[in-house]
Amino acid sequence: MATHNATLVAASDVTGTAVYGADDSKVGSIDRVMIDKVSGKVAYAIMSFGGILGIGGSERPVPWNTLTYDTGLGGFRTNITEQQLNDAPTPAREWHGDRAWEENTHRAYGIAPYWI
Amino acid sequence: MATHNATLVAASDVTGTAVYGADDSKVGSIDRVMIDKVSGKVAYAIMSFGGILGIGGSERPVPWNTLTYDTGLGGFRTNITEQQLNDAPTPAREWHGDRAWEENTHRAYGIAPYWI
Repeated sequence: MATHNATLVAASDVTGTAVYGADDSKVGSIDRVMIDKVSGKVAYAIMSFGGILGIGGSERPVPWNTLTYDTGLGGFRTNITEQQLNDAPTPAREWHGDRAWEENTHRAYGIAPYWI
Repeated sequence: MATHNATLVAASDVTGTAVYGADDSKVGSIDRVMIDKVSGKVAYAIMSFGGILGIGGSERPVPWNTLTYDTGLGGFRTNITEQQLNDAPTPAREWHGDRAWEENTHRAYGIAPYWI
């Protein structure tokens, strides 16, 4: 018997997946993902907040490990707070090539780096 | 000083990245990637072989761990052989939801599963 594995998805199909906060309210959605070619791990979700959490329609790269996939919910859960979003370093144009930014960002969200 | 990290890339930008065989010849390229939402790992590269290795223009899902990113080369290396490609189980329409197919495929390529 084949066991259905509903957690495997084309990276492009993650677009639009909802992200819920600790209180089950929707806080945003995933626009796209960044992967680390060397480790083969998903490193960041670029999230849209659409005015929720006080972050205007802007997008923010959020460390992937702040998200937990909930198969029952069909979406991700996160415990990140508005405070953390505001305190996290602003992404510069070349943030994805800047290890210092990455380190500060993971520290701001209290999450272990994906590269260790 | 910012350290440039050239290995982080938008999942969509992996499309077209070349894959080289053990003898440095190009064997194909990556069309897209499948990620495992739960573990946050890249699970498969859907590769195009374009007639190389005796695989007609078809696409094949190849376990991500058969690929190693070579920053100098700007592409991936693989040790998979034509024999392995031919011996690997043919992907059914719903292969990504079929754990038995996934187990047999990883065994055929002699590679550890991404989900353990």
